[in-house]
Amino acid sequence: MDRYLVISSDGHAGPHAADYRPYVDPEYREAFDVALPIQIAATEAAAKSFLVHDINIEWRKGRDYELSGAWDAEARDKVLDADGVAAEVLFPDGVTEMNAPPFGAGFSMSPEGITADLQWAGCNAHNRWLAEFVSTAPERRIGLACIPVLWDVDRAVEGARWAKENGLRGVILPPRWGSHPGYHQSRYDPFWEACESLDLPIHFHSGPAPIEEYFGAMPPPDLDQIPPGAMGIYVTEVAMWLVRPLTFMLWGGVFERFPKLRVAITEGTAVWVPEYLQLLEHRYAETHYAQKLGDYRSHLSMSPADYFRRNVRVGASCMPRREAEMRHQIGVSNIMWGTDYPHPEGSWPITGEQMHTTFDGLPEDEIGAMLGGNAATFYGVDVEKLAPIVARIGPEKRSFQKSA
Amino acid sequence: MDRYLVISSDGHAGPHAADYRPYVDPEYREAFDVALPIQIAATEAAAKSFLVHDINIEWRKGRDYELSGAWDAEARDKVLDADGVAAEVLFPDGVTEMNAPPFGAGFSMSPEGITADLQWAGCNAHNRWLAEFVSTAPERRIGLACIPVLWDVDRAVEGARWAKENGLRGVILPPRWGSHPGYHQSRYDPFWEACESLDLPIHFHSGPAPIEEYFGAMPPPDLDQIPPGAMGIYVTEVAMWLVRPLTFMLWGGVFERFPKLRVAITEGTAVWVPEYLQLLEHRYAETHYAQKLGDYRSHLSMSPADYFRRNVRVGASCMPRREAEMRHQIGVSNIMWGTDYPHPEGSWPITGEQMHTTFDGLPEDEIGAMLGGNAATFYGVDVEKLAPIVARIGPEKRSFQKSA
Repeated sequence: MDRYLVISSDGHAGPHAADYRPYVDPEYREAFDVALPIQIAATEAAAKSFLVHDINIEWRKGRDYELSGAWDAEARDKVLDADGVAAEVLFPDGVTEMNAPPFGAGFSMSPEGITADLQWAGCNAHNRWLAEFVSTAPERRIGLACIPVLWDVDRAVEGARWAKENGLRGVILPPRWGSHPGYHQSRYDPFWEACESLDLPIHFHSGPAPIEEYFGAMPPPDLDQIPPGAMGIYVTEVAMWLVRPLTFMLWGGVFERFPKLRVAITEGTAVWVPEYLQLLEHRYAETHYAQKLGDYRSHLSMSPADYFRRNVRVGASCMPRREAEMRHQIGVSNIMWGTDYPHPEGSWPITGEQMHTTFDGLPEDEIGAMLGGNAATFYGVDVEKLAPIVARIGPEKRSFQKSA
Repeated sequence: MDRYLVISSDGHAGPHAADYRPYVDPEYREAFDVALPIQIAATEAAAKSFLVHDINIEWRKGRDYELSGAWDAEARDKVLDADGVAAEVLFPDGVTEMNAPPFGAGFSMSPEGITADLQWAGCNAHNRWLAEFVSTAPERRIGLACIPVLWDVDRAVEGARWAKENGLRGVILPPRWGSHPGYHQSRYDPFWEACESLDLPIHFHSGPAPIEEYFGAMPPPDLDQIPPGAMGIYVTEVAMWLVRPLTFMLWGGVFERFPKLRVAITEGTAVWVPEYLQLLEHRYAETHYAQKLGDYRSHLSMSPADYFRRNVRVGASCMPRREAEMRHQIGVSNIMWGTDYPHPEGSWPITGEQMHTTFDGLPEDEIGAMLGGNAATFYGVDVEKLAPIVARIGPEKRSFQKSA
């Protein structure tokens, strides 16, 4: 094969907020109708304080059709083809396309300000829509079910089974647990067991953070009321909030009890990985500093860093050159490149160009692993089925060779 | 001078819990008498679940006199002499010497579960005791006042003035703010202004973290009830919680408005600094990823990483060789070595040995800066006054030269 199999580990899809209605359980449709205008108003307000309206409008100009790929299968495949992407992982969407799932469902699944039943209703609506969307091209679309595991673990196990039976290939969990038990606690074991046996990798997606602390109020105030620096703090801390669930799982011995369970940490950059692994190694190995804390390691047969290397992958969206240069410290086999389409911070519509900036001149097998090989293994992708697509739209390997 | 001036950036001092009584305002003595047995019982319970009793007992054997340096000036000076330490920075103490200040005061100053008046009463008691303790050898002791700034900024300004007038040379603030406004908010400006004009550096000391999340309950349950991994999560995350106030201050423009304000971040290791500075630089410089977030930089005339280099120092307690090797990425002039005496995780009683492991073979001027020169500048130490002590007990410079 003279072209790379490219799998984006980070795509977003969902219908416009109003179009979730038929996917909502009938008993929650009344609530949906009440909540919809509130949700739309809140999204518009967020777009004003959180997003720069002008830049978004500017960026979107002339791209309506391509952006409709957020919910339109044909438009989406055209974008994937142009990007050289054979298959992709699908998270819910959010503010930019006005297509967040109802009732605060999505990849955040805030553990506060909502009831369990409503959050489940929202997640179920999205999962149903996504199962349909995936079925339009199952070989290209790796759909992830939203599972608000914090509320009820048995129900989460059922949700995972439903996802598997309906063609979804992984689950998304809330990265913040509020006052619910953390992910190190044995309470979640039945869910880990289900995901391991159903072969459903677990995902945490970047975004959630204590923005009420940054903005000084919730909902976020108008732009001119936001304390200076709030956004700088957010972009500095957001990856840290994403890594927390992993820290809890690694030390909690989750991968000791469920050695085949897999986790992807998506769109939180990958630059934090080398220092994080060193820290885990150090805290596991050293005994002087922590001797006063007692035995906190004997439930683990290896270092948390070793579980990371074996069980965890990093969804490296819009991966910069620096991360490619750090690939051996991060772990070449732990990196899964992604585009973040259709978000404005993503690589689309200049994905091809960015790929070259990131990977030009690196060894072919390593580029292949990061661009798609690792994801193919992680998701058990049928590479044979994708071969005709790769042959048609995959980036040519020789184009990444350094010119002499 | 053929010996190094050594200043420990991390020492702990305070009388036994019961001996704080005379330093407590009369109106709070009744509350003190009620709270004391509860505090002692809680500390003992913490020592059982949080600390390994056996190791502590073993480690303390035959060291009663040296450990009494936590409150006894004569004993303390003998320990400093033996360690080769000419001067040191003094934080409150805690669990190991049963000498935490009353009413939850100390370097944590938890923003929850206490009233403002009681927390102030506890801090005032400690600050009074410390002012006395410092006066036994003012040239050797750099005392820091505990200021619970979250509750009332005007009162915090008064507290800073009292500290300055009474020979204390810096302030300690709570590293976690709970539901109070974060340190990026202009609410704290009068306090930053006071500290800048009084020449009082601000300190955050490692320790506080959401341990209720780790333990799954508060107060911490018995050892056998703690979820496996709780302590591993704590030691992995604790530095992150310490860095948060700095992130808020840097982006909030605090050092833009108060260019001479200085901050020390103590006992949180220094290994996180290079990646943190890269992240700050990146978030400040890049425009594609964050363009949808709007302008969050124009209130800063330089990168948050530049404020860090200019205004922030890292209290590198028990500094390992690896940090010394990373010194240029961390910033040689940003590192202030420390012992953490009298804590069991500290370098005492093998400080001399550890110094050599960390610094042997490095350039003399860099060792000098990290061991004491940087701290001397940061605290405006009267080096002339310390010279006779250095001549008597300072480590010999030639002993750090690499043998051929």
